Amino acid sequence: MRVDGTQYRTVDWEDGKLVLIDQPVLPHTFRQVHIDDHVVAAEAISTMVVRGAGAIGAAGAYGLALATRQAADAEFDAYVATARDRLANTRPTAQNLFYGLTRVSEAIATAGGGADPDGSRVAALAAAQAVADEDAAACEAIGRHGAPLIADGAGVATHCNAGWLAFVDWGSALSPVFRAHRDGKAVRVFVDETRPRGQGARLTAWELAGEGVEHAVIADNAFGHLASHGEIQIVITGSDRVARNGDVANKIGTFGRAAIARRLGVAFYVALPSTTIDPDCPTGADIPIEERDGDEVRWTWGATEDGGFGRVRTVYAGCPVRNPAFDVTPADLVDGLITEHGVFPASREGVDAILRAAGRL
Amino acid sequence: MRVDGTQYRTVDWEDGKLVLIDQPVLPHTFRQVHIDDHVVAAEAISTMVVRGAGAIGAAGAYGLALATRQAADAEFDAYVATARDRLANTRPTAQNLFYGLTRVSEAIATAGGGADPDGSRVAALAAAQAVADEDAAACEAIGRHGAPLIADGAGVATHCNAGWLAFVDWGSALSPVFRAHRDGKAVRVFVDETRPRGQGARLTAWELAGEGVEHAVIADNAFGHLASHGEIQIVITGSDRVARNGDVANKIGTFGRAAIARRLGVAFYVALPSTTIDPDCPTGADIPIEERDGDEVRWTWGATEDGGFGRVRTVYAGCPVRNPAFDVTPADLVDGLITEHGVFPASREGVDAILRAAGRL
Repeated sequence: MRVDGTQYRTVDWEDGKLVLIDQPVLPHTFRQVHIDDHVVAAEAISTMVVRGAGAIGAAGAYGLALATRQAADAEFDAYVATARDRLANTRPTAQNLFYGLTRVSEAIATAGGGADPDGSRVAALAAAQAVADEDAAACEAIGRHGAPLIADGAGVATHCNAGWLAFVDWGSALSPVFRAHRDGKAVRVFVDETRPRGQGARLTAWELAGEGVEHAVIADNAFGHLASHGEIQIVITGSDRVARNGDVANKIGTFGRAAIARRLGVAFYVALPSTTIDPDCPTGADIPIEERDGDEVRWTWGATEDGGFGRVRTVYAGCPVRNPAFDVTPADLVDGLITEHGVFPASREGVDAILRAAGRL
Repeated sequence: MRVDGTQYRTVDWEDGKLVLIDQPVLPHTFRQVHIDDHVVAAEAISTMVVRGAGAIGAAGAYGLALATRQAADAEFDAYVATARDRLANTRPTAQNLFYGLTRVSEAIATAGGGADPDGSRVAALAAAQAVADEDAAACEAIGRHGAPLIADGAGVATHCNAGWLAFVDWGSALSPVFRAHRDGKAVRVFVDETRPRGQGARLTAWELAGEGVEHAVIADNAFGHLASHGEIQIVITGSDRVARNGDVANKIGTFGRAAIARRLGVAFYVALPSTTIDPDCPTGADIPIEERDGDEVRWTWGATEDGGFGRVRTVYAGCPVRNPAFDVTPADLVDGLITEHGVFPASREGVDAILRAAGRL
């Protein structure tokens, strides 16, 4: 999508290097980082230089492709296996990470692995490129299928960042918004700040500004009030993992939005590429929920008044904190799953229909 | 309540001076300000050095008592009337402020006003002292009535600050928690950060630490996840105004907590002194909702890493923001109103019963 009129991908490959948009410094600074070491790629995922379902999947895939280039021929298989473990252990909830790593691993195995290191290197990069291209294409299709759900003049609420910065391009939840806007509809987006890390305030608002979509950032607490006063007609969020029964894991706070929306009769949709579905995960209760460092709650990062960048602590020093990073929205609160294959019910039947359309069932 | 083992009131009177805890610098600095000029008292209210319904009421009452001491005998009545106007104009929507000022004005009138300046000075201070003492007593009674709702070992969630810093002592929502804790129950409090101003993170956590109550600050988004995993058995919040039908206006985000709690079958109670009821307000829809300055959302205040105090901006410069400060929780989502007269249903019948018990109906 566009930054100051120039087209970018969140995760890209250039001159033998993985190229990421450095997300923690957004929206205050726009810069890309160039990575030629899979250890650095893994760090970029765990420290959230790159974050978001599809973006992590592509970064993990490219990271493993980097590892094939770092591996000596003599110890190729062992090196790549260790690298894969390192990359897989960065973010436990993200389904797309495992999908991306598996695609590249399978390509390496098919190419012979240590029996043909050079062939495997070529195959790994091709697989990673395919993961990225397919992610971008799927997200664009999500926009086409989701845009008709947004009425002209609608207020749309979204949580966290499920825009193009969370994928390779277009995004999941924001893709229907971008499409509706490009189709000429009046759309107003209410952007949850999304504490503790503030991805809505920092990233989603910046993305919407870049595309010229009308928006307002709100404290996470304000959603219920605005929705109950008729300002919000539809909620669209992304997802980090969808279980077989249609339960949705997503950024902490998503479940609450869904419960409030149901109380008010406001539509609640989840947008995702089909790769976010984990067919082996029966229900949301089986999805591991990451609890992150409490300092994410204790401290808030941002631009300082002197034009620098820093953080402030709101709680007393050493205050105990709990910091679950995701929650599970039960399928019955979700009005539909917007995918690259169309809009499906959030149910076992709906999920199986998506998997069949994706050729995975 | 206790700070480092010493007993304090939020609003107190000492050696002829109004003594306030300086709240904007909490929890980073604990200090009291000593005020002997009603003009300074009015400034302290408008700049929120003192905030919270009961605390403002007592501070206004003491402020007017200060004015009687500043007034020359010859122009006593005119001076006091002007002082009253100044104090009343600090927070024009705060019900308890008018209640406190009216109590002191009536005492002055009864004592003769300018006809007996010394008698009026004594009467004014006695009335202010009574306002403060009655507020503290009502809040302590709220604790006695509410504590039985908290089971031994319970997880309690609260929103914003409705502790002793919002009143003269004890608080509303936290009073049952303090009482249960002093009664020897194991209580664990999950403290909503309460964006945008962070009263939970800044004030409630600090209060609970002072009393030795186990607690953890959570992002506002985390409530649903923790409640759905059995970590929270009861929610208790305060209120800024209760309508005649039992609808509750409170800090933005309260309605969302109630909707989520209902979905999960978690108990949701609102604690308030009966003075918070507005008998002339038929329903929550009649309560005006203040929208505050967007910079409260754009910027976050706190302690800086160098030991100072400052703010950071999370959104891009000039980002549009919406900032409603309160919301309305419909009575049907409230399991009960905890008052100094007992626990009542959140309904027209329940509210009328409270008003009768308070001698106001």
